[in-house]
Amino acid sequence: MRVGLIGLGTVGAALARQLVGNTTFLQQRAGGNLLTLAAVSARSQKPRPGLDLTSVPFVADPLAIARDPQIDLVVELVGGHDGIAKQVVEAALHAGKSVVTANKALLAYHGSELLALASKQGKILAFEAAVAGAIPVIKVLHEGLAANQLHRVVGILNGTCNYLLTQMQAGAGSFDHVLAAAQQAGYAESDPSTDIDGHDSAHKLAILSALAFGHPITLSAVAISGIRAVTAQDITYAAELGYHIKLLAIAERGDDGLVRQRVQPCLLPRQHPLAGVDNVTNAVQLKANLAGQILLEGPGAGGDATASAVLADLVDIAVGRCQPISVASTHPSAVVADNPLEKLVGRCYWRLQVVDQPGVLAAVAGVLARHQISIESLLQRAGHPDTQTFPNGNVPVVLITHRALEPALVAAADELAKLPQLHQPPLRLRIEDGLA
Amino acid sequence: MRVGLIGLGTVGAALARQLVGNTTFLQQRAGGNLLTLAAVSARSQKPRPGLDLTSVPFVADPLAIARDPQIDLVVELVGGHDGIAKQVVEAALHAGKSVVTANKALLAYHGSELLALASKQGKILAFEAAVAGAIPVIKVLHEGLAANQLHRVVGILNGTCNYLLTQMQAGAGSFDHVLAAAQQAGYAESDPSTDIDGHDSAHKLAILSALAFGHPITLSAVAISGIRAVTAQDITYAAELGYHIKLLAIAERGDDGLVRQRVQPCLLPRQHPLAGVDNVTNAVQLKANLAGQILLEGPGAGGDATASAVLADLVDIAVGRCQPISVASTHPSAVVADNPLEKLVGRCYWRLQVVDQPGVLAAVAGVLARHQISIESLLQRAGHPDTQTFPNGNVPVVLITHRALEPALVAAADELAKLPQLHQPPLRLRIEDGLA
Repeated sequence: MRVGLIGLGTVGAALARQLVGNTTFLQQRAGGNLLTLAAVSARSQKPRPGLDLTSVPFVADPLAIARDPQIDLVVELVGGHDGIAKQVVEAALHAGKSVVTANKALLAYHGSELLALASKQGKILAFEAAVAGAIPVIKVLHEGLAANQLHRVVGILNGTCNYLLTQMQAGAGSFDHVLAAAQQAGYAESDPSTDIDGHDSAHKLAILSALAFGHPITLSAVAISGIRAVTAQDITYAAELGYHIKLLAIAERGDDGLVRQRVQPCLLPRQHPLAGVDNVTNAVQLKANLAGQILLEGPGAGGDATASAVLADLVDIAVGRCQPISVASTHPSAVVADNPLEKLVGRCYWRLQVVDQPGVLAAVAGVLARHQISIESLLQRAGHPDTQTFPNGNVPVVLITHRALEPALVAAADELAKLPQLHQPPLRLRIEDGLA
Repeated sequence: MRVGLIGLGTVGAALARQLVGNTTFLQQRAGGNLLTLAAVSARSQKPRPGLDLTSVPFVADPLAIARDPQIDLVVELVGGHDGIAKQVVEAALHAGKSVVTANKALLAYHGSELLALASKQGKILAFEAAVAGAIPVIKVLHEGLAANQLHRVVGILNGTCNYLLTQMQAGAGSFDHVLAAAQQAGYAESDPSTDIDGHDSAHKLAILSALAFGHPITLSAVAISGIRAVTAQDITYAAELGYHIKLLAIAERGDDGLVRQRVQPCLLPRQHPLAGVDNVTNAVQLKANLAGQILLEGPGAGGDATASAVLADLVDIAVGRCQPISVASTHPSAVVADNPLEKLVGRCYWRLQVVDQPGVLAAVAGVLARHQISIESLLQRAGHPDTQTFPNGNVPVVLITHRALEPALVAAADELAKLPQLHQPPLRLRIEDGLA
């Protein structure tokens, strides 16, 4: 099997190292089929440490590899949901080649069409590496749990966010401080917005949800909040209550049959298996009718870890184990909720930065009461002698509200944001007590 | 695909319920192939709750199903490493049928020959359900991590043992008490020896190790200790030191290339991911060169959970996704250590039940010193005013020893057992600090 590789970043280089340096072992694992790195294309031809590509043709135009009749299979490791990645995948499929990709953004935006194209061509579009790095979650969902109806998928799918939250929990400093440190350590991009605003998690969730429930990949139906507003102080308050703050990606099929997808920083009980998943580790918990709760945990990123998943796809294709994956767009077995939050009910954690003066609490409590939201407890309040005061008389009010419907919570938050005593819109995080 | 089912116990009945009651869904998951329950055989024809088998032929002789040309595939859920289970699997493979089994004992004793026979016949012998119930660990090892070299497999593979240890840790009473309660609750067999003496874990480990490292299944090379000697008191002492006691199944490839397999109750640091795996849950941690550490956790037993794994195999076979698994007996890629313990080095937990009289500690320390084993700490000692005394002046001495070689530890334990001051042979448990 002659492999054309597009992209020589961390993952591409790690993959090339295996294909070039581990030929015999891989051939054995691929049932005797030789996986030959037959062409590479990358933005730069600079040398990569520990990788000798002198015997592999370098092709400047990636589309030439996709169309080359001498190439049997294309590995796309460029990234990005449009541009060259999409062109390469489409061209390769049109040319009758199977494709392996780690590109979650591409799949989140165009996965259903691309999978349909692959099916039509009788070829494979494999993407184990697109979600949760080394963890074979695509295979477990699609094959290992093939006979199950899924109830819920909950994941920690973004290593950068989980690293930042873990570091703040460990007392390493403020959000800005741990972000800067993570950027230095290579755990966060120089522009971290795709990660910390929740988009990367949403891409991965959209893929998992489609596989789990059998609906078209529908990124537009994922409710997305990131972690920018979460402070080290919030993590401390949550810990006092017995919770860890995690950016969770949740897809759940409701009693009404609708699948709701959301990415949100949540308070997760300390004893929940996902609460202890720290730093750049990823994890997915699957709840299924026969298998019960299955937890998968492992490295969510990194060159070798992601290459492991790409290679598993290559081996599957080489031995003929892969079947086209359909995420049925014509006969979906589940329908996605366009507004995944509107029927949610739950307890919430609130932090409001207020002016430290009499009457603030009365105003806040009044707004909540008007929306039928009961206050369960008050952790920190304005006017209290122990309350920490920030510049300009800015103090935090932290409270927990009883179970309430999301639209009421949103309306209350909007109204609170307009109170003259508030320095900034309130932070509200869902408390996920029901994921056991 | 016409399926013949042998065995209608908890798993067999759960499987039959799915095959009979969930036909359309399973057909869709099996790429349009209909999975028909075409014949069943069981010791008794008594009705099973929620299962209508009136339209399924009952065949008294299971071998008749194995040989019936109308049957395409046989599911063996009888259990036992010899007798009818083995005859059925052999007969079915000889008759050119693929076989799905949940029978770990059969595979542990005869797996290599049976897999070779299946290969020779060009048929599949699939056994996802044999290890860790609903967790697709066979698929993850064999396919998901296909491109990896495995370093280590560590599992909690026996739900009964884990339940008993968890219950003791939760303060539910003595070993005998929690065992009796587990038997009443259906979590332990009336004869629990296969589980609590470690044999069931060893069967499963022998299978996992062969898949992980590519050697023939070699049950005889697994060192096996069970949990009968572990007391609630040991669990309390371990907890004071920051450890949980777990029955671990460990297969590890050493620097010398040899694979060492062992099943032992061990002290595992509280923060290790496997330490929090409680009750009947199973879990496996895989350490691989590219993927890093992968943790899989889920229900290790139960009708539906195990049926989920059997059905995954049926779907894989129906869609042509299964390839014969070889656990190379002709060209093994790894060699198994016949004596897996002899080169182990480690710290140990010891509990000695001694006569409470002067000089006991000196005698114990003297034996250890003669074998070059240093005492790291003494938790509980004879002659101390706080020491709990049992009838006949029997008191526990609990100590931790520094890293030492296993043969020295064994020799010291043998010599200690001969001390007249000891009421019973010492209990020694390995402290597994190095599994991170």
